[in-house]
Amino acid sequence: MEKFLRYGMVGGDIKAFIGGVHRRAIAMDPRAKLVAGAFSIVPELHVQTADAYHIDADRRYDDYKTMAEKESQRPDGIDWVSICTPNFLHYQIAKEFLEHGINVVCEKPLCFTEEEAKELVELAAKKNLVFAMTYTYTGYTMVKLAREMIAKGKIGKIVSMNVEYVQDWLVGSLDPANQKATTLSVWRSDPKYSGISNCIGDIGTHAENLLHYLTGLNIKRIVATTDKYGMALDLNSNMILEYENGVRAGFWCSQVACGHFNGLVARIFGDKGALEWSQEYPDDLLYTPVGEPTETMKRGSSYTKVYEAGNLSRLPVGHPEGLTTAFANIYRNVITTILKKKNGEKLTPADLDFQNAENGLDGVHFIHKAIESAEKGTWVKY
Amino acid sequence: MEKFLRYGMVGGDIKAFIGGVHRRAIAMDPRAKLVAGAFSIVPELHVQTADAYHIDADRRYDDYKTMAEKESQRPDGIDWVSICTPNFLHYQIAKEFLEHGINVVCEKPLCFTEEEAKELVELAAKKNLVFAMTYTYTGYTMVKLAREMIAKGKIGKIVSMNVEYVQDWLVGSLDPANQKATTLSVWRSDPKYSGISNCIGDIGTHAENLLHYLTGLNIKRIVATTDKYGMALDLNSNMILEYENGVRAGFWCSQVACGHFNGLVARIFGDKGALEWSQEYPDDLLYTPVGEPTETMKRGSSYTKVYEAGNLSRLPVGHPEGLTTAFANIYRNVITTILKKKNGEKLTPADLDFQNAENGLDGVHFIHKAIESAEKGTWVKY
Amino acid sequence: MEKFLRYGMVGGDIKAFIGGVHRRAIAMDPRAKLVAGAFSIVPELHVQTADAYHIDADRRYDDYKTMAEKESQRPDGIDWVSICTPNFLHYQIAKEFLEHGINVVCEKPLCFTEEEAKELVELAAKKNLVFAMTYTYTGYTMVKLAREMIAKGKIGKIVSMNVEYVQDWLVGSLDPANQKATTLSVWRSDPKYSGISNCIGDIGTHAENLLHYLTGLNIKRIVATTDKYGMALDLNSNMILEYENGVRAGFWCSQVACGHFNGLVARIFGDKGALEWSQEYPDDLLYTPVGEPTETMKRGSSYTKVYEAGNLSRLPVGHPEGLTTAFANIYRNVITTILKKKNGEKLTPADLDFQNAENGLDGVHFIHKAIESAEKGTWVKY
Amino acid sequence: MEKFLRYGMVGGDIKAFIGGVHRRAIAMDPRAKLVAGAFSIVPELHVQTADAYHIDADRRYDDYKTMAEKESQRPDGIDWVSICTPNFLHYQIAKEFLEHGINVVCEKPLCFTEEEAKELVELAAKKNLVFAMTYTYTGYTMVKLAREMIAKGKIGKIVSMNVEYVQDWLVGSLDPANQKATTLSVWRSDPKYSGISNCIGDIGTHAENLLHYLTGLNIKRIVATTDKYGMALDLNSNMILEYENGVRAGFWCSQVACGHFNGLVARIFGDKGALEWSQEYPDDLLYTPVGEPTETMKRGSSYTKVYEAGNLSRLPVGHPEGLTTAFANIYRNVITTILKKKNGEKLTPADLDFQNAENGLDGVHFIHKAIESAEKGTWVKY
Repeated sequence: MEKFLRYGMVGGDIKAFIGGVHRRAIAMDPRAKLVAGAFSIVPELHVQTADAYHIDADRRYDDYKTMAEKESQRPDGIDWVSICTPNFLHYQIAKEFLEHGINVVCEKPLCFTEEEAKELVELAAKKNLVFAMTYTYTGYTMVKLAREMIAKGKIGKIVSMNVEYVQDWLVGSLDPANQKATTLSVWRSDPKYSGISNCIGDIGTHAENLLHYLTGLNIKRIVATTDKYGMALDLNSNMILEYENGVRAGFWCSQVACGHFNGLVARIFGDKGALEWSQEYPDDLLYTPVGEPTETMKRGSSYTKVYEAGNLSRLPVGHPEGLTTAFANIYRNVITTILKKKNGEKLTPADLDFQNAENGLDGVHFIHKAIESAEKGTWVKY
Repeated sequence: MEKFLRYGMVGGDIKAFIGGVHRRAIAMDPRAKLVAGAFSIVPELHVQTADAYHIDADRRYDDYKTMAEKESQRPDGIDWVSICTPNFLHYQIAKEFLEHGINVVCEKPLCFTEEEAKELVELAAKKNLVFAMTYTYTGYTMVKLAREMIAKGKIGKIVSMNVEYVQDWLVGSLDPANQKATTLSVWRSDPKYSGISNCIGDIGTHAENLLHYLTGLNIKRIVATTDKYGMALDLNSNMILEYENGVRAGFWCSQVACGHFNGLVARIFGDKGALEWSQEYPDDLLYTPVGEPTETMKRGSSYTKVYEAGNLSRLPVGHPEGLTTAFANIYRNVITTILKKKNGEKLTPADLDFQNAENGLDGVHFIHKAIESAEKGTWVKY
Repeated sequence: MEKFLRYGMVGGDIKAFIGGVHRRAIAMDPRAKLVAGAFSIVPELHVQTADAYHIDADRRYDDYKTMAEKESQRPDGIDWVSICTPNFLHYQIAKEFLEHGINVVCEKPLCFTEEEAKELVELAAKKNLVFAMTYTYTGYTMVKLAREMIAKGKIGKIVSMNVEYVQDWLVGSLDPANQKATTLSVWRSDPKYSGISNCIGDIGTHAENLLHYLTGLNIKRIVATTDKYGMALDLNSNMILEYENGVRAGFWCSQVACGHFNGLVARIFGDKGALEWSQEYPDDLLYTPVGEPTETMKRGSSYTKVYEAGNLSRLPVGHPEGLTTAFANIYRNVITTILKKKNGEKLTPADLDFQNAENGLDGVHFIHKAIESAEKGTWVKY
Repeated sequence: MEKFLRYGMVGGDIKAFIGGVHRRAIAMDPRAKLVAGAFSIVPELHVQTADAYHIDADRRYDDYKTMAEKESQRPDGIDWVSICTPNFLHYQIAKEFLEHGINVVCEKPLCFTEEEAKELVELAAKKNLVFAMTYTYTGYTMVKLAREMIAKGKIGKIVSMNVEYVQDWLVGSLDPANQKATTLSVWRSDPKYSGISNCIGDIGTHAENLLHYLTGLNIKRIVATTDKYGMALDLNSNMILEYENGVRAGFWCSQVACGHFNGLVARIFGDKGALEWSQEYPDDLLYTPVGEPTETMKRGSSYTKVYEAGNLSRLPVGHPEGLTTAFANIYRNVITTILKKKNGEKLTPADLDFQNAENGLDGVHFIHKAIESAEKGTWVKY
């Protein structure tokens, strides 16, 4: 009976943002320990990171291929790898670890083409491996609560939806002078590194994923516009999404919306009520039963305990949990799932409540369909 | 030198909502007095209203035609008529008064067809009469302030917009049982009374008008969906509006959005900053200069006095003004304009800051283009 | 059977703030008309105001004494006088009109000493006249709703309260240079014009009045501090109020609190729930039933209609009413009361729902007790 | 040159709330590792916790005395102990570890009497040991930013303050039936376990500490009331605090305020501006420069980077950090300080930015003075 897991990381050196988030989120759970890594292609950063995390000398790998091979051969090899590299490397690294029989946790987007995505989905299935995607926002307790409320009919039949994910950090790119000068902007707009889309790929996919996670609804048809403002790739996009059952959703993502930082907001309207959740205030969930006042539901409060999701908190009501905890909630389920699989225990739907490679494939499909609609200037079937 | 005006009203009996708003708004200004009316086709309501407002016996008219004729012949005849009837009557009543040389203030929508709208625009021009439309939300001080800030470059070049106008009062119509039973819903969905659109016509036009008022931008192309949920006319609509200069706006209007009452919210994003205004909290205006914190600008505060619009308040900062005052702001300009015309004085742009028949025509055009796009399932040129 | 009333005004010229509020509020009700006035001791302002409001030549009075005498002798004399002068004149003007048998509506504070206040209370009672005080905030629909909810036990037994009324407009007085230079500040700090208190007298009394109006509780004991910052009178004050039943309330009023404009906020906590109301967003009322989420109750919504106060709105839910309407709500009851008294009709508690001279006396008592506590540095019995 | 630290814990079994927060907060920093513990006096909980955290068999201690002795003798002994036991045990445990030469991190309150508190302060000084207190809220980035802004004169000279810390979780204690039945309430009201105060001791001290941390001001005089509602100790308290320079602060703490969960809100007003921070939305800081709009400053935003505190974030703007991160910020400084002391490096004020035993002593003093004032019914010197 295994109680602990070992994990490795590719990318995520100590200067990178998202690698640290993964490590701190996993560290909230005493059941897993970082033991191996290929943290950076810059040798000093790789060494500094390995030092900071006490990685043994023989598990500091110069490249991910060696890491996958060596770890797969050790009796105490890693149980999973967390991939925190730039997006264009996800596919090849994920594939390598899967082929060596190692579970994968991958940042989104999964990869750039649907062919690659399908290959990874099939490879994970064939190898019977866990392939988790860190769609961060599905980890928040109040998102899970909203999902459960919808499933239990608290807002009735869905009739309309609205989602936006808006930021302002690329507003500087609107100035033609910066379009050449800014390394960041150039990188963001280089198809080699960002695929066919910048904004939709980076944040729009989170918004689409969130609506699907909350409601289970699938898109049938889409119309989109993209705004490049002189850059090679999109910085802003408006869409109308038509789901099965004819439900329509307004959709907007932007990286040039002054005053917005990480503004992911989902609103779901049914014939019996409505729900609204905003990422920047993640412990609150606004619920309006039809004909009643809007209620501000608070994570951790007694009245949320009637829901399964209401019992997932680590902190009491009024003590903000934040994004690292949302990440930790994803990893909690991934760790439980991998542990149970190792121990031959039965998995429950609650254990498997994390986004996987199929959701990653959905994201890639979404990007391609949105870009297709914008380029053709028409509705496109999904 | 005239100092006072007399006005009459068609529709707007004491049980009707909007007639009272007009009267209370006008009463905030001592320069005008209600002296005549054809308040209702229900005789008791007509009399009760005339009694309540001290209307002389010879100026209580059974029908608007008589009223137009008689008032146009009196030396002390009304200076304008306010039309507060159901929408399908606007055209014929407005036309009648214009033909009798009487200025008109009309609730929106102006009328149902573009032909009728153009006829009214031309008739008002030919007769050199004022034809004001009470697009309520353009009367709010902070809307005017936002407009002035945009014109003065405070947010730079506009790059993206978002507007919504959402309510919940027809959510009961989603239940098929109610679709037959509810008088209100039936009326709302009867093309005879509502033209070709319910939701877009009733509130969507306000949203479109607000973006135009704020920015001066004109629509070039539009894609829309409408949701009828089993009714004859739309109850919910999503759109993408493409303006000149390629600026896109997400657009949503709904009467079935639980938790929203009169939720008109406009957000305008430029390369130097952003503005956000929400009708339910009309004295606040959110302004984000690029790279700076979001500022909550308050109507009446000292720092708004550098703008012309900052000096329009009737109440000091922190003392809420509300919708009746927005209405009164519209009428203040209408009264000034009519008075100045009577006195042969020169009109300033500030005097003429109210929506007119051309804006009413724009609204009718918008409805038709939106419905056309929804029916064809394509983008349509504007 | 009388249907209409005539009123006069003392003070309130067209350049003064509060006189216009009174007139616009009264004008929302077609049952009363301004017919007489002594608007200013500055002749030009008096005439301009009388002109603007179409006052007949023989009812434009140079002084309030003449006005009281002449109007009391006319068969069509005014039914009430609204007193909108500076505070130090309230007592003598109110007394004059009462002695001439004319009903009074007076701005707060009623007067400066308890002796004067008691004299006015007794005089009004002896003459059987209406003496209304425009404690503005008691006119808001959601304040009335909160009061009714408390009376109906929706928050159970009250256990704790908190009130604040904070503004920033005298923050400039903190600078010694301005203490001499600013006319306004000097006036505010001159006991001749402001009595023994500036801040407590001007806004603190509103806060105390609001708690009493909401709960019906009476103060038993008080401890207070006042901050003058070098001025002659208080600009800031903290208190603890102890009410009957041992309920304590935190109390704070200030005119030097940057970022606050007219920030009157009351919070009432009971053993079954809590209520919170904030003047700057007056159409919202926050209600938390014990163990349930906080509900944002909206003025005009269907779920408020189960309360009497829920039926007082002039505008539908989501259409902001504002302070002028709160004022109009007070006058609506005053007008109904005076009309019914003229017609010999029976008055209901709803008709009499306005603050009167006794409430004015309470306010004067409160000021004196607060100043006494601050000066002695002890708790004082009330 | 040491790079890593080892720590132990007394109390904090896996079922306890605060022990887990400490562990997860420390785990955000790879420089420290949990290696020893006396987690519970319940043997099963002790073992379960030790198992979950991989504690070696010889470092699982049945009691804290043995732990202090053994660890102090090991060459790889713990660098500090984190004390997470019930409050009444803090004194004896802290003393024991100090006497064995081990640094201490202690939950607040430090202890119950001022004599004990002084003893611990002196003992830590004599032994040259770090004695940190986890006054959680001083760990938030935006609290540190507010403190720095005040120090740098951004709000000028402080003229008024207001603080509240209100919760609702003991509202059930108001019911006499529950006062006997509820174990929790009984415990909270038993002086053996809670000292002379429940509410002021538990949360009021945080509020007092926060004002002092933000402003550096010291209390001179205090007047307080306490409400017990039939219990042995206070559940609610109002105070006026008078600081040096004559600045007054309104103060309120409560555990019976329906609708509030962990509502710590501080507002500081100066003659050049004001700041407001609310614990439930900790990434926002409201700043109002005099005469300007209120700005919502966001943790992680570019405009905060001009402040030292603006560079402390672990997550970018818009990605909520939450309470665990505030805790981690405290530990980050504690770890740095202990490491530097071990390495003989020079300590900076930034390193020492955590609350210590003297702050703990201040808290004990505050409790005693507040209770004294409430019991005497007078102002008391501090």
